Amino acid sequence: MRRIGVGLLGLGTVGTGVCQALKNNRDVIVKRTETLLEIESILVRNPEKKRLVEEVQDRITTDFEQVLRADIQVVVEAIGGLDPARTYVEKALEAGCHVVTANKELIAKHGAELEWLARRRGVRLLFEASVGGGIPVLGTVQHLLKSNRIHRITGILNGTTNYILTRMEEEEAPFERVLADAQEKGYAEADPAADVEGFDVAYKLAILGRLVFEAEVPVSRIPRRGIREITPEQLRLCRRLGYTIKLLAQGEQYREEGPVSLQVGPALLPLSHPLAPVKGVYNAVHLEADVVQDVTLIGQGAGEQPTASAVVEDLCNLFRMPAAPGLSPSRDSFLLPSDDDGGPRFVYLEAGEPLQISSPAELCRRLQKIGLAVDGAVIHPEDGCRGLGLIFRRWDPSYPPILLAELGLEGVRLSTLPVQDLPFTRELSAAQAGIPG
Amino acid sequence: MRRIGVGLLGLGTVGTGVCQALKNNRDVIVKRTETLLEIESILVRNPEKKRLVEEVQDRITTDFEQVLRADIQVVVEAIGGLDPARTYVEKALEAGCHVVTANKELIAKHGAELEWLARRRGVRLLFEASVGGGIPVLGTVQHLLKSNRIHRITGILNGTTNYILTRMEEEEAPFERVLADAQEKGYAEADPAADVEGFDVAYKLAILGRLVFEAEVPVSRIPRRGIREITPEQLRLCRRLGYTIKLLAQGEQYREEGPVSLQVGPALLPLSHPLAPVKGVYNAVHLEADVVQDVTLIGQGAGEQPTASAVVEDLCNLFRMPAAPGLSPSRDSFLLPSDDDGGPRFVYLEAGEPLQISSPAELCRRLQKIGLAVDGAVIHPEDGCRGLGLIFRRWDPSYPPILLAELGLEGVRLSTLPVQDLPFTRELSAAQAGIPG
Ligand SMILES: NC(=O)c1ccc[n+]([C@@H]2O[C@H](COP(=O)([O-])OP(=O)(O)OC[C@H]3O[C@@H](n4cnc5c(N)ncnc54)[C@H](OP(=O)(O)O)[C@@H]3O)[C@@H](O)[C@H]2O)c1
Ligand SMILES: NC(=O)c1ccc[n+]([C@@H]2O[C@H](COP(=O)([O-])OP(=O)(O)OC[C@H]3O[C@@H](n4cnc5c(N)ncnc54)[C@H](OP(=O)(O)O)[C@@H]3O)[C@@H](O)[C@H]2O)c1
Repeated sequence: MRRIGVGLLGLGTVGTGVCQALKNNRDVIVKRTETLLEIESILVRNPEKKRLVEEVQDRITTDFEQVLRADIQVVVEAIGGLDPARTYVEKALEAGCHVVTANKELIAKHGAELEWLARRRGVRLLFEASVGGGIPVLGTVQHLLKSNRIHRITGILNGTTNYILTRMEEEEAPFERVLADAQEKGYAEADPAADVEGFDVAYKLAILGRLVFEAEVPVSRIPRRGIREITPEQLRLCRRLGYTIKLLAQGEQYREEGPVSLQVGPALLPLSHPLAPVKGVYNAVHLEADVVQDVTLIGQGAGEQPTASAVVEDLCNLFRMPAAPGLSPSRDSFLLPSDDDGGPRFVYLEAGEPLQISSPAELCRRLQKIGLAVDGAVIHPEDGCRGLGLIFRRWDPSYPPILLAELGLEGVRLSTLPVQDLPFTRELSAAQAGIPG
Repeated sequence: MRRIGVGLLGLGTVGTGVCQALKNNRDVIVKRTETLLEIESILVRNPEKKRLVEEVQDRITTDFEQVLRADIQVVVEAIGGLDPARTYVEKALEAGCHVVTANKELIAKHGAELEWLARRRGVRLLFEASVGGGIPVLGTVQHLLKSNRIHRITGILNGTTNYILTRMEEEEAPFERVLADAQEKGYAEADPAADVEGFDVAYKLAILGRLVFEAEVPVSRIPRRGIREITPEQLRLCRRLGYTIKLLAQGEQYREEGPVSLQVGPALLPLSHPLAPVKGVYNAVHLEADVVQDVTLIGQGAGEQPTASAVVEDLCNLFRMPAAPGLSPSRDSFLLPSDDDGGPRFVYLEAGEPLQISSPAELCRRLQKIGLAVDGAVIHPEDGCRGLGLIFRRWDPSYPPILLAELGLEGVRLSTLPVQDLPFTRELSAAQAGIPG
């Protein structure tokens, strides 16, 4: 049996979960991996704070160098943020320690350099917990689908925003009210920007893009929209059209080593899409690949225990699983612009006065007549026909003035959201199974 | 780079898919695993048959010994059935070849002995394709959740029956008609027993039981019910009560190395259960574990390409991933009886004449009064109240006569189906997210 010393940086949500899992599941880990993982030293900021796991109290320090001097082969970074996490991870790698981290921001922004450094030092850098919490997304891609060319990846990667959208849809409640309640309950941070503006998802998508498409794309170049502008009316109209709205991470690659498109933002999903039923704080990833067709993974994307699971699995895998082949750090990725990509689009209009429309079907016919291909229309029922939702089969930035002129509207707020197609294989099997739409 | 010679047994659906994937994705496999997988010899029954993959024509033989004499390190078994597949696999292992197989019946019935043989010969036996087709279920359990204690596993593991149930529910069509149509379309075999009677699922559950719970349970001891008796009326009543019916593989273990319960049969799933939206030919597995909480995997459980993906991934993993620790073959598993387990249960009654019930709520009250805890009741609407569905919170085999007496019914067909609880963590997050029941 191998004995591995672990230095833990941070004893917050994730760090505490890791201590607990290593303690409670020591027997399983030993039996299945023949490895004894022992925490030798723990770095915190405030040495006075009362800790939940009492038996590690004697190993707590505020001096990073003391962690490195302990008898360790691995450093687990669970501090978060760029500074000082980055410096500590670099120093650990330089010192010849493997590193396991849950830090999406660090890996999204500096993952390539850090991996390079790890490679030079002959150690490993693993970060399963950084994407999708407990869901073993990165492991699945790297170890269980490696003979597949994955060409599309769609994810619900932020539990806070999925929780908010779920409640907005089910309670028909406005964003601000649900957010405030989520903050009160501890599901959203006091400063919710990282979640609701999509930064957190963009970090995760950057990591997935590197791993799945071998595309090194700076986070700042990933088009990103948040969910602040989504209204319960939009959610209701979408549902009547057969869709739901989710904050999605979307990545696509056009042939191997070809250009990629990455984007983060709210989008419509057909209700028969495998990600549509993913509710509340759950996360999920949908992968489309050439041999396996499509695979969906669903689970808890955050929280003490699920996140700890991912960290501890990484700890076990460090000494068992083969390293993924490295990316050449000089690789240039061609990022396609993602807006107005000519795909299907949901258009939402809110008129100041009742619209002169007798029925959605009539409206579709009228628009079709002037050359706008509309797949569905729905009118806000309780509103004297002031709200209007339309699904365009193909969208073009030149459409809004045509559309507004045809409807005889001026100065009306028109907002659009992309619509995610049903995966090809789903369309087939939905048709085969007689499942409508 | 390593070069690995592969001997392929069978060139039907799976064999053809494997040939094609190895050809089309050779570049990806070489790049990611530094292994060149080359098919050296292919065993078939009928040498005259025209084959879809032309370039392998010259390697086709009808003589198994010739396959073993080729320059191979691995045998892929894609013949199916017990005989001669079992003999061939044994001979291949004896000859020091690794074996990859898609054969659930073989692994369910003789997996333990074959693994033992492989171990003695210092080779590996992998069978990812045998459970869930393309979904990497076994890999996830063995390599990505190994620090977790999995205590419950629920699966939709047969595409044919899920397709039939989906269509029965969506078209309100009877079993026999949908089956006939599925047979015509090639989704169901001419002899559908293996699928609709649940044998196929029982094989897969036996394999999962061994892997997940280390429980060696003979297939014949797994309680098994098929879907022949499910009616569109039952499906409709269930949906109105907030449930769907799926053919489920259910496995549970009561503490580590503790007794297990395994069973196959139709069961009710709450509509908010992660497996409820899995439709058509899709398969899925839901795992509940102590650290990660719950993970759901969804994908295509059969078909040339998805199944080939699993076989080829196994081929890549043979030389990369660590072997799972072996089960002691003498291990005795304590299988709990699964019927009448006191859990929640759906009861369906079809009376010959209209029932004297004014409303479901009144009925619930009446039954509660005589000590039967009923969670929900629904009455068949278009039938002068002849069909009746009830959800009992706890079921007891002594209930039927009490129930029938209370309703003033005699000689009425009463059928019951178990109800799968919502996973605990789901219940929590559903409540948190304001998702009803
Ligand atoms: N929470 C989740 O569910 C989750 C899920 C996936 C990924 N992650 C990622 O995991 C990481 C940690 O998150 P968390 O939620 O565990 O954070 P947290 O609860 O805020 O804990 C942070 C810990 O780091 C310590 N720390 C902070 N600054 C430090 C410094 N300068 N020097 C030494 N120690 C310092 C804190 O010490 P004190 O205790 O003394 O204050 C605390 O123990 C982040 O990268 C996060 O994105 C979290
Ligand atoms: N089909 C799926 O989607 C799927 C999914 C998961 C697992 N599986 C499993 O994969 C295995 C193969 O299934 P399949 O659908 O590919 O079967 P299949 O299409 O019927 O093909 C069977 C192949 O084996 C050959 N064969 C049969 N008996 C033989 C014998 N005695 N000696 C030599 N060759 C023999 C046949 O030869 P000829 O071509 O000359 O007739 C044929 O090429 C089964 O265990 C099945 O349960 C299948």
